Amino acid sequence: MKLIRFSLPDRNEVRGGILDGTTVRAFAGDLFGDKSPTGEVYPLADVRLHAPLKPGNIIGIGKNFVAEGQVKPPVPDLPIFFMKPLSTVIGPDEPILLPPGVAEVKFESELAVIIGRTASRIRPDQAEEVIFGYTVANDLAALQFFHPEGHWTVGKSFDTFCPLGPVIETNFDYRSARIQAAVNGVMKQDSLMERIIMPVDQMIAYISTFTTLQPGDVILTGTPAGADMVRDGDAVACTIEGIGSLSNPVQAIR
Amino acid sequence: MKLIRFSLPDRNEVRGGILDGTTVRAFAGDLFGDKSPTGEVYPLADVRLHAPLKPGNIIGIGKNFVAEGQVKPPVPDLPIFFMKPLSTVIGPDEPILLPPGVAEVKFESELAVIIGRTASRIRPDQAEEVIFGYTVANDLAALQFFHPEGHWTVGKSFDTFCPLGPVIETNFDYRSARIQAAVNGVMKQDSLMERIIMPVDQMIAYISTFTTLQPGDVILTGTPAGADMVRDGDAVACTIEGIGSLSNPVQAIR
Repeated sequence: MKLIRFSLPDRNEVRGGILDGTTVRAFAGDLFGDKSPTGEVYPLADVRLHAPLKPGNIIGIGKNFVAEGQVKPPVPDLPIFFMKPLSTVIGPDEPILLPPGVAEVKFESELAVIIGRTASRIRPDQAEEVIFGYTVANDLAALQFFHPEGHWTVGKSFDTFCPLGPVIETNFDYRSARIQAAVNGVMKQDSLMERIIMPVDQMIAYISTFTTLQPGDVILTGTPAGADMVRDGDAVACTIEGIGSLSNPVQAIR
Repeated sequence: MKLIRFSLPDRNEVRGGILDGTTVRAFAGDLFGDKSPTGEVYPLADVRLHAPLKPGNIIGIGKNFVAEGQVKPPVPDLPIFFMKPLSTVIGPDEPILLPPGVAEVKFESELAVIIGRTASRIRPDQAEEVIFGYTVANDLAALQFFHPEGHWTVGKSFDTFCPLGPVIETNFDYRSARIQAAVNGVMKQDSLMERIIMPVDQMIAYISTFTTLQPGDVILTGTPAGADMVRDGDAVACTIEGIGSLSNPVQAIR
């Protein structure tokens, strides 16, 4: 099932919807609970897509892919994790804003896992039960704001630095999927998700050892080789086969 | 005004209240909006205090105090910031849980600033307008989970690692206040807030350059000299003159 959040051109209200081909069926109720169809149906072309959820926490992992042909290192005992504040979230086609004085920022196409159930100290084989679905994320960073002592917080936390979308796919096996990113139509990242170092089930289990995951928490699972810089006027599209394509223009703040 | 969240012994419901001496006056409505007294009044001794708010984001600064007699360095161009997930929050007297296999964790008594208004790219002289109030925080960390490349996320993110309370004081000048921490009644931290390196107004302004602050966001402003370790069975009390004392027992998870 493909879940979206959308609004109609003449209204501010953001609604939940199920995307069925090019048809949007509105639902009422909680994303993680009962979704009752309201009976309203719209063509996809007539609605504006928003980020498919309002996350709780956003937790990302660093350095989690090997390049093509590279041998996978062992899963680290202590992976690099970081967090992004909630004001980083934007939806499809919303502009990624370059901070004042910043000419270029790094994009990273990533699989985002949406947590659907409370999870504390679970085993990897229990991860599937707590995963609600998957979406595409673009994990942006302004590298000059990475602290020389290793803290990434500021660099990864600027407003608009976490586009999410276009849909949450609840029925998805990431292991055989392809993940890509293109800038102005030129392919920059093109990898198989199987090049991931710490697999999603182990990652969820690990994170659940230190924090009780809650419905709405979002886990960014790392980016493959080829992540590059974007500048004012560029458009970056992150795509995961089976979920969809998340495209955002890049704009300097005037 | 001193604001609390409380529950009655026989009920699960957590309510908002105004603390007036040792009298709690319940209110209905939003902490950051209209607070209408419900007419219910309880003695403080009869209620259980909870963390005085449910935060949005929790953002902390590192290395932000000098010791007594030390000369303050200049405010850094790029301070160390980190985030803590929401499941770190507990209230007064709730146990700080040692992660399995962890014998001791570091406590840090800190002034926590509660944001009350949306703030993006504000100047330091505008910070006071967006500050709702202040509470006491204990910023705990399991140091063996600090990543050797500098990332503090995991070490600072364990459940229960951000006690907050006992009250939000909305009328408070931190600059002349004393901040302390005691373990089992023995003073470990005893400093003046004036030993802070990046003052609160500059810190809020800086954070607002990268993230749009929202009502409910909590800023942890750093800890003075003397932060130390606590173990199973200890009790740690963090105190800021003019706000109150936040005491929590430390427990191994059995």
